[in-house]
Amino acid sequence: MKVAELGEFGLIDLLAKMVTGSPSPRLILGIGDDAAAWQAETATQLVTTDSLFQDVHFSLQTTSWEDLGWKSLAASLSDIAAMGGRPEYVLVSLGLPGHIEVDDVVALYRGMIDIGQRFGAVIIGGDTCRASIVSITITVLGATGRDDRRLLTRSAARPGDGIAVTGSLGASAGGLEMLANQLHLDTDTAADLKNAHLRPLPRVAEGQVLLRRGVRAAIDISDGLVADLHHVCRASRAGARVEVEKIPVHPAVKAAFGDKALDMALSGGEDYELLFTAPAEIIRQIKGEVSCPVTVIGEIRADPAVGVSLVDATGNPVELTRTGWEHFTAK
Amino acid sequence: MKVAELGEFGLIDLLAKMVTGSPSPRLILGIGDDAAAWQAETATQLVTTDSLFQDVHFSLQTTSWEDLGWKSLAASLSDIAAMGGRPEYVLVSLGLPGHIEVDDVVALYRGMIDIGQRFGAVIIGGDTCRASIVSITITVLGATGRDDRRLLTRSAARPGDGIAVTGSLGASAGGLEMLANQLHLDTDTAADLKNAHLRPLPRVAEGQVLLRRGVRAAIDISDGLVADLHHVCRASRAGARVEVEKIPVHPAVKAAFGDKALDMALSGGEDYELLFTAPAEIIRQIKGEVSCPVTVIGEIRADPAVGVSLVDATGNPVELTRTGWEHFTAK
Repeated sequence: MKVAELGEFGLIDLLAKMVTGSPSPRLILGIGDDAAAWQAETATQLVTTDSLFQDVHFSLQTTSWEDLGWKSLAASLSDIAAMGGRPEYVLVSLGLPGHIEVDDVVALYRGMIDIGQRFGAVIIGGDTCRASIVSITITVLGATGRDDRRLLTRSAARPGDGIAVTGSLGASAGGLEMLANQLHLDTDTAADLKNAHLRPLPRVAEGQVLLRRGVRAAIDISDGLVADLHHVCRASRAGARVEVEKIPVHPAVKAAFGDKALDMALSGGEDYELLFTAPAEIIRQIKGEVSCPVTVIGEIRADPAVGVSLVDATGNPVELTRTGWEHFTAK
Repeated sequence: MKVAELGEFGLIDLLAKMVTGSPSPRLILGIGDDAAAWQAETATQLVTTDSLFQDVHFSLQTTSWEDLGWKSLAASLSDIAAMGGRPEYVLVSLGLPGHIEVDDVVALYRGMIDIGQRFGAVIIGGDTCRASIVSITITVLGATGRDDRRLLTRSAARPGDGIAVTGSLGASAGGLEMLANQLHLDTDTAADLKNAHLRPLPRVAEGQVLLRRGVRAAIDISDGLVADLHHVCRASRAGARVEVEKIPVHPAVKAAFGDKALDMALSGGEDYELLFTAPAEIIRQIKGEVSCPVTVIGEIRADPAVGVSLVDATGNPVELTRTGWEHFTAK
């Protein structure tokens, strides 16, 4: 059945039934009224919103609806993680051409519900509209669980801070390259790269550890390591020096792409790892407390004019061949 | 300058500067980080989101960018009003083709900032993306100021409740008709209708009075009186009887459209008045406390099978020629 046949209210009813599984005790009103409502706890509240448009952010040729749902929500959960927060509530606004199959929208929701449950976030509202292209706008509300206003921000990096990243980088870009060019890789590598690109796992627990352990500056790696580190430097009015040989390039990316692997790790984007800066002692404590690798890749410098400088093991500059992309000016 | 020339980050900087005028004391972090943050008060929190798409919800031929900004935010503020809440924070996600003029986006924001200031709501975040059509998704956060979980919901109408509406109806539909067909009406009528359609004023103060005075059921009239009353009946498992002669049709609509005026008031939509149900005594008290007209137009009935029945002064059924529209199935 097409969404045009089911109609807006039929579709809302169907989707509302899917998401009523695990109501939170503080939720007063979910889908179906003019607004959703909940009882706030005394804590710093967080909200982030992201829009994705067909043929700009995703292609229905290479992404299944269920993966699209997962990945769309992952991006916003990752923003909450990058503040040190715990995601709580999700709003989903869909623009849908009438010819879209209802089953596909259900699959999209299934993907969002799956990842939401994994990270404790429930869909409590949204909007569905007719549109000429598929568009998905996701809003995630969260809280830090703290009432002291402390957060992980982009602007709190200080000269002398170590620059660290969680996990490994480049696998999402590798997955995209593999899917877009239909590369044939060995089964394990292919599965790793595909999952990294289509089913990323935001570092929600890790972000909360960072905040608790006294980290002040963090960002999630969505635009690419260099681009996101640039955001931190700009907001903090500082520079950064990164030793490229320390960058934790994902092993499957090294295996599959050789010389291109480093570029993918530096500027591929969509890895949804956390980049943070802190004194060495704090980073050391964090390494002992989180279950994923944490790698120090460089240092924050006082001079903002440096920007992000990439050096090899001997301190010589390394050229960056691509940077993360930005909208409108990207081709 | 086109948005493609300025780029995503340039545009965000420009818009961020526009909205930093009146920070709320509880706001911790606005535009520019992974998420916005604020300190919650102990009160019921509200959130609503609405998407608008070019050529489905608005036409850039008949709407200026500034009016579009005003009206887009008005719709979401009205949802918060319909819960009895006070709007606080706004997130704006824009999809923009690269050829759009930066000045037009600035005008869009100016319209949103204007109406936001009028109702105490500040823009604290959002997203801007390249897209093939203009799309606007607005999320408004609010609170009731109460910690007792009381709200105005669609599901709380009870048999015997009077059905009341604020203000008058049909002027937005009249304004659309006038603008779309370039009708020449007298200056005052034209101004009234145009304002009603392009610069609606949601009943934010009135919604809070309703909640304080003990009203339990309300909805804002966005889809049209009959369609929205249907939503209330369905959610409350009840029916409704409306005396069409009691409906407060806007005088300018009567003057300009004669016989068509009642239809416009019944099903035109986008009036952003509040429809609520309550015992007669409560409605009487509210009339004394709000500055706009409040008109009782009918009564909630026990039998949901009745749906919304329209009758004349003698109790005879009246035919409805149009109903409010819904997405996907609408032409």
